Amino acid sequence: MQTDSTKEYFSKDKAAASENTAVPENKANLKAVMETPVNERLRKQLEFSLEIDKEKNIFRQTHLSGHGRNENDAEHAWHMAIMAYLLREYANEPVDITKVMLMCLIHDIVEIDAGDTYAYDEEGLKTQKAREDAAKERIFSLLPEDQKKELTALFDEFEAYETPEARYAHSLDNLQPLILNNSNDGGDWREHGVTAETVYGRQRKTRIGSETLFRVTDAIIQENIRKGNLPEK
Amino acid sequence: MQTDSTKEYFSKDKAAASENTAVPENKANLKAVMETPVNERLRKQLEFSLEIDKEKNIFRQTHLSGHGRNENDAEHAWHMAIMAYLLREYANEPVDITKVMLMCLIHDIVEIDAGDTYAYDEEGLKTQKAREDAAKERIFSLLPEDQKKELTALFDEFEAYETPEARYAHSLDNLQPLILNNSNDGGDWREHGVTAETVYGRQRKTRIGSETLFRVTDAIIQENIRKGNLPEK
Repeated sequence: MQTDSTKEYFSKDKAAASENTAVPENKANLKAVMETPVNERLRKQLEFSLEIDKEKNIFRQTHLSGHGRNENDAEHAWHMAIMAYLLREYANEPVDITKVMLMCLIHDIVEIDAGDTYAYDEEGLKTQKAREDAAKERIFSLLPEDQKKELTALFDEFEAYETPEARYAHSLDNLQPLILNNSNDGGDWREHGVTAETVYGRQRKTRIGSETLFRVTDAIIQENIRKGNLPEK
Repeated sequence: MQTDSTKEYFSKDKAAASENTAVPENKANLKAVMETPVNERLRKQLEFSLEIDKEKNIFRQTHLSGHGRNENDAEHAWHMAIMAYLLREYANEPVDITKVMLMCLIHDIVEIDAGDTYAYDEEGLKTQKAREDAAKERIFSLLPEDQKKELTALFDEFEAYETPEARYAHSLDNLQPLILNNSNDGGDWREHGVTAETVYGRQRKTRIGSETLFRVTDAIIQENIRKGNLPEK
């Protein structure tokens, strides 16, 4: 895969690493390792790594296939990232797939503090931005400054919908729950009394990331209307 | 990120796509789209995407931080992939981080059929290979042939432990549950009566992927021995 430019990355990292990650050769203990100033970088990276575990407790409105339990954000992100890779040939524009996968993996981390806002929850959507901005600042600040900047920029790029990577990643953010809900006969729509009009409103942007995946989306919505799982209006 | 070689990938995909992914221009319905021969490729990709949803029901022995519930394979893979990216500067050798992240994301898919085998379950470990080989064949066969080959090769590469990417990905496969278990005062070890000797046996290979992450591992094990969470023998 992208070995050359990854090596370039690596060298850059190595330079940073050599300054920041030397560890005592003697039998270390966690307290010692974590309190060694040269390891402040590593300590922060591990603190962030532990903090994001909480994303597994943020549950969504989508249910797992087989009429399963509600899905959580970490599972959704994992599923999206794999689908993004496997379906990348359908992106409207060439994409940096590493960047897309990273966007998929981190795009919901702010919900650790801000909670999940259901796509059709109008009240929640009004305060979503402010809640997520505060969360973004707190959570990404656990990282070393360079990685805080990188992940914040990646999160903002996803939210801004302006790059091929962001547009394609959003197509997966829409399609992944759609295939689960479709496999459950549209149960999530029925539970919330959602209409096809509303679903098209949410899903229409899939088209700017992938015309092909939008056609799949359209086909799924039409089939669910026909089956009576989704009222048109 | 790795834009150039990703574009190259993309072009290759585009070629494949142009033959395989044309969809009817008329208002499609799912049945029609899925039964259109030219879309056999897309149908297979979507079937695989739905099938892997089942990985969210495969629970591990590890518990979430905050003395939470058992973690499932999809959550573990998501967590590993993000940690692999953030900690890549500590890999012993330059790695293709896209490949590492993909390995992390798919390395447990076979457990949909084979189930999770606890690292210290000696009986289960004896039959693990046969169970996972059968699962690998069934599940990856849902994909188009080229993607079946790619993901099978990636899975085998991870298992073989022979490339820098596989060795580094295994370091994360070891470290991710370790930081969760450490945050829970070693509860998973106590539950299974595991000794430090056994843990070192499992974790020693972290060193061939990352010396730095092995030092963290060593520090965590030593601290848990001192705290009485982990008997030495």
